[in-house]
Amino acid sequence: MKLLEDRIKKDGTCIGTEIVKVDSFLNHQIDVALVRALGEEFARLFKDESPNKILTIEASGIPIAFAAAQALGDIPVVFAKKSAPSTMIEDAYTADVKSFTKGTVSTVRVAHQYLSKEDRVLIIDDFLASGEAGLGLAMLLEEAGAKCVGFGAAIEKEHQGGHARLEALGIRVESLAVISSIKDGEIVFKS
Amino acid sequence: MKLLEDRIKKDGTCIGTEIVKVDSFLNHQIDVALVRALGEEFARLFKDESPNKILTIEASGIPIAFAAAQALGDIPVVFAKKSAPSTMIEDAYTADVKSFTKGTVSTVRVAHQYLSKEDRVLIIDDFLASGEAGLGLAMLLEEAGAKCVGFGAAIEKEHQGGHARLEALGIRVESLAVISSIKDGEIVFKS
Repeated sequence: MKLLEDRIKKDGTCIGTEIVKVDSFLNHQIDVALVRALGEEFARLFKDESPNKILTIEASGIPIAFAAAQALGDIPVVFAKKSAPSTMIEDAYTADVKSFTKGTVSTVRVAHQYLSKEDRVLIIDDFLASGEAGLGLAMLLEEAGAKCVGFGAAIEKEHQGGHARLEALGIRVESLAVISSIKDGEIVFKS
Repeated sequence: MKLLEDRIKKDGTCIGTEIVKVDSFLNHQIDVALVRALGEEFARLFKDESPNKILTIEASGIPIAFAAAQALGDIPVVFAKKSAPSTMIEDAYTADVKSFTKGTVSTVRVAHQYLSKEDRVLIIDDFLASGEAGLGLAMLLEEAGAKCVGFGAAIEKEHQGGHARLEALGIRVESLAVISSIKDGEIVFKS
C-alpha cells in the first residue's frame, strides 16, 4: 500500500537492523485518517472471507482493528489482554506471546464467551515480525474452535520470518507494507 | 447518554459495590457502532474547546479516543504507554497511575515530541472512578505546558470522587453515563 510505504519512508526510523519505529503515526501517536485508510484496505482484502469478528492484541493493534471493523460493517473487535484485571474472573483461552520490542513474555487471554465455534475471525495487528503474536492469537482461536480467516498486519518485516510461519499453519497473510531489510539505517521495501 | 445507559443496564454486570464490568461492549469486546456514537457525543460536547489532539491511556481508552478524534475531524490521538518498549528511547513525560481494577501502579509516559505548549488537548478514557488516570494524564500535560481543554469519560462512578478531583484542578469533566451507586448488584444511574 503506497500510502503507508510513503509514510514509513517519511516518518519511520530504524533502530539497528531489526526495529522500525513508527511512533509518530501508528504506535504512540495515531494518524487517524491514515489508520482509517489501513482499515479500509484490510476490509477490501478480506471481505470475501466474511469475517464476523476481529481479534487483536492490546494496545497498538486496537485502532487498526477498530478501523477495519468499521469498514467491514461494524463487526465486533475483541482484544486479547496482556494482564488479568480483577474484573476478568471468567475462564479464558490463553497463550504465551513473546514481545520482540519489550523482551518480555506475556500470557495473553480472551474470555471464553467472546470466541465460539461459529466465529470466522480476522486477526489484525500493527506489526508482523517473527509472528509470535499472530501464532499466539491463532492458538487461542484453535482452542476456541473458531475459524481463522486471515491475518492482516500493517507492517511486515519479511526477514524475521513470521509470514512463512503463519502460512505454514494454513493462514492467509496480508501485509500492507512489507520491509525486506534494514541496512545502514535505510528501510528497504519488498519490490 | 441514554444509548450508553441502556447498554450498561442490559449488558453491564457488577462486582461488589465498586466495579462495573462492561467487557462485552467496551473493555474486551468492542461494539464498534456504539463506540463510534460515544466518540460523536464527545465531539459534540467538546468541539467548541477546539482541541487539536486527544490524549488517552492504553488500552481500553484507545478505541473511544479514536472514535472521538474521527468525529473531531481526524485530529491525532496520543496514547500514554504503561511500559517502556525498547523502541521508546527518547525523553518522556511520566506520571504514576494506580489502576483501580488491577491493584498496580504503572508509570505512564508520553514522549516529549508528542505534546507541546501549543497543544489544546482533550483527555478521553473509558472510566472515571477515583480519577487516578485523569490526574496522571493532566500532570503530563502540565509538565509539557500543554492546555487541557477537558476530560471525557464514557462511564463515571460518581461515588468514587474522581469528577470532583479533576474539577478542582479547573478541568471541565463530561461523562456520558454517570453511576451514582451500586447496591445489591444493581447499578443506579444519576437522575
